[in-house]
This record gives sequence, structure tokens and C-alpha cells, in this order.
Amino acid sequence: MKIARFQWQGKVRWGILENNTIFSLAGNLYSEFEKGKELCQLKDVRLLAPAEPSITVACGMNYMDHIKERGMPVPQEPALFFKPVNTVIGPEDDIVYPAVAQDLRCEAELCCIIKQEAKNVPEEKALSYVLGYTCGNDLTLMDLLEKDGRPTRAKGFDTSGPLGPFLVTDVNPHNLTIKGRVNGETIQDSNTNLMLFNIEKLISHISAFLTLRPGDVVWTGTPKGGSHPVKTGDIIEVEIEGIGVLRNKVVAPN
Amino acid sequence: MKIARFQWQGKVRWGILENNTIFSLAGNLYSEFEKGKELCQLKDVRLLAPAEPSITVACGMNYMDHIKERGMPVPQEPALFFKPVNTVIGPEDDIVYPAVAQDLRCEAELCCIIKQEAKNVPEEKALSYVLGYTCGNDLTLMDLLEKDGRPTRAKGFDTSGPLGPFLVTDVNPHNLTIKGRVNGETIQDSNTNLMLFNIEKLISHISAFLTLRPGDVVWTGTPKGGSHPVKTGDIIEVEIEGIGVLRNKVVAPN
Repeated sequence: MKIARFQWQGKVRWGILENNTIFSLAGNLYSEFEKGKELCQLKDVRLLAPAEPSITVACGMNYMDHIKERGMPVPQEPALFFKPVNTVIGPEDDIVYPAVAQDLRCEAELCCIIKQEAKNVPEEKALSYVLGYTCGNDLTLMDLLEKDGRPTRAKGFDTSGPLGPFLVTDVNPHNLTIKGRVNGETIQDSNTNLMLFNIEKLISHISAFLTLRPGDVVWTGTPKGGSHPVKTGDIIEVEIEGIGVLRNKVVAPN
Repeated sequence: MKIARFQWQGKVRWGILENNTIFSLAGNLYSEFEKGKELCQLKDVRLLAPAEPSITVACGMNYMDHIKERGMPVPQEPALFFKPVNTVIGPEDDIVYPAVAQDLRCEAELCCIIKQEAKNVPEEKALSYVLGYTCGNDLTLMDLLEKDGRPTRAKGFDTSGPLGPFLVTDVNPHNLTIKGRVNGETIQDSNTNLMLFNIEKLISHISAFLTLRPGDVVWTGTPKGGSHPVKTGDIIEVEIEGIGVLRNKVVAPN
């Protein structure tokens, strides 16, 4: 099932997408719901980020092809960091290149949206805590990452976490083609089967110290070709099999 | 003015404290408000964290006495990290010692609560974006900090950020006695005048990459004696001149 969050007739709503038609979401997104009445066409709405997290946890260096490409040691445990809520933008929003940096990079990622409160979840039960998946672009300021030695500014700046276009509940997260493009040129082309720590391991590891709540987001790392330089005016696309294309433009600050 | 957030008669409210009497807060906490009618006595309520942040940014190594004690180089810029919203607890809540760690430490800090949306704020205007100040205890898992090489688990675990007891609007943040105690023994005794980067510098630096919003919290670092080991059963107190005493107990996980 494809689920969209969108603005239509001045209101923010969740809906269910079939072909190009949006139906109302009858029930509670985080428990039981079904397809309601027909609302409108996809072209009539403004799509928003398909998640409303209070916490977003991300995992660095989590694809074997990316680790080899960088010549990094294979992590023994997930290398986690937070992207705060100011990073979240939707598929029709602009990425604002911060004035404090000169080396913006893009990273295609599979993102996982939490369905129910998750604390101390064992790996074998972890997928039952997942509502669905979407595409994410983990924008990174490489110059600040190197200067600061930590990702707080480099991956925590406003607009640095586009999500979308849809939340999809029925893909197999362990075997999905994932691609990144800049101005139409493919710069990442990999598969989620190259993840070092899978979704189950990540949720189990995270929930051992932190309570994930409905709507929270787990970013699962970027494959080979990640950290590709981008500049103002560039169009960045993240495409994941079965989910769709997340497309955002880089703009200069006001 | 001393402002309290509390639970009373089954509802969560903000109020104004004078001596031991709580009055209603008439108006909007983040714009204009005044003292309303008398509600109850302080002893009749359960105090809650006096902030409802969506983002919490903290600064490490920010007191000259702490930097010298540790023999660390003096940072050229604020060393920032995020404490996510799951860390927030109030003055009457317990700190839960996580099962995944064996070396819990406490750190007394002055915390600053944001009044209005702050983006690209110059230092000379920064204090006008501050609603007030409270005490914070930046609980840290030193073993995980060293093992992980990053503060995500070490300073991001559930209950690791007690705040309180009150939000005080009219203290001078540049010259306040700050103390930490464990089971009544003083382990930190310093003054906020030893901060390397003051509140104005921190808000200016943070708001250059991230939009702070009303209710967001900036932690300003811990003085000499910080990172003191604590164990289950210990009572930790943070006392800041003009604000009060934040007191929390360390308990074992359920």
C-alpha cells in the first residue's frame, strides 16, 4: 500500500494512493486503517514528507560497497547519529545550501517509519514495529563534518533531510534497488541487500537505549557513490524500487 | 519571574510561582503573559520539565575550569551535539540506568529555553530570543562514549536529560553559582562566568545552521567536577543560583 501525506484544500491529510488517485485513510495510521472514499488526483495536491517524527536516528557507513569504496574499517556496531526535526522537508521542498558551508553532498537512503512504541525490541520482532519505508536524502556538509569532527552541523542543518515521495508498507526492505541521480546523471546504483546492519538489527540496537515512537524515522545509510558533491541549482533524485522518486532542488539561502 | 510546568487536578499547566503559591499564567508563554488568579500551593502539584522542546542542542567542553581539569585543548568553536526529546524528564522523575552500560556520570548545566523562532541571530540580539533558564543534568554513559566515539547512545538515552525545577526569566546567565551534588556531597561548585562560549555566542552559532523554535533548549556545558560517576540509588542534585535545585534519583531498569 502506498500512503501519501499532502496538503489539499488548505488542509494537511494522510491518504492512500492507487495509480494516480488519492483516497482518504479511514482509521488510525499507526494501528488499523483502510482505504476510504476517493478524494482527488495526485496532481491536485502538494506532497509533504510522509512522516512526522519526534526523533530521527541515522546510521553511517552501513553499506558494504560504500565501506569498501571509502577504504573504511567495517564497523562492529551501528555508527548512529541524530538528524533533528528541522531537517525534515517533503518531496516538493527546496534544499537550502547553508551560507556557513562550501561543500554540500547528497546521500540516497532507505528510511524506515516506526509504527508503534519500540523499547528493547528483539531483532526477530523488529519488523512488526515498522509502518513502512520511504526514500531519504541525507544532505551533508563535508567541509563542516571534517572541520567539526562530528555531524551536528554537517547533517543537522535546516532542510538536510528530504523524505518521500510516499510511505510504502509492503516492500521487502532487504532487496530493493536504490539509486541516486544529480541532474539526471546516475551517481548511486546499489541494492539494500548490501546493508551491513539490517533494519531489524538497527531497530533492536537503537531501542536498547532509546524509545522510538510512532512516526519516528530510522535512516539506514547510503551505498557506494554517496557523498556526491552538489551545488545550487542542482536537482537531486533518490529512487527506491517500489517506493518512487524523491526529487529536490538545491537553492541559495534567502 | 519563576515559571513552573506541572500536573494538577489531572491536567498539565504552566503557572507562575511566588513563594510557595502557584498562580495561573494568563496569556501566551512565548509572547505576552502575566500573573493570573491563585491556583494552588507548590506542594499540591507534580512538577514537570519546564520546557517542551522539539530540538535540544548541547555544548561540550564549555567551562574553562573543566577544560583545564581534563587537560583538553581549548575549543575554537562550540562542540555541539543533540539530546533528543526522549531524554527530557522533570524534577520528580527517575533517571533509569540503561542495561547496556556500566559507567553512568552526571553533569550539572545551565539550560536556556528559547522564546521565539531564531535563525541567523547575531550575538548582540541573542538574549532577546531567550525566554529563561533552568537547571539541567547531562547524564552520560562514559563507557559507551569511549566505545562509540560519539555521544549518540552515551548522551541520547531515555531519561538522560532532567530539567527543572523552574524556568526563571530574570537571572543574569553570565554570573550564577552552579553546583552539583551526589547524595548530599558537593562534586561541582563553579560559576557560569567561566563559560568559554556564552549564551549569545551559542545561540548565534547554532542559529546559523538550525532554526531554533519556542520551547527549544540549549545546554551550555558542565564546569569542573563534571562527569562524576553515579550508581543506582544515588540522588543527584543540580543547584543554580536564583533558579533552584533539580533533584533526581538513579534507578535500575524495570
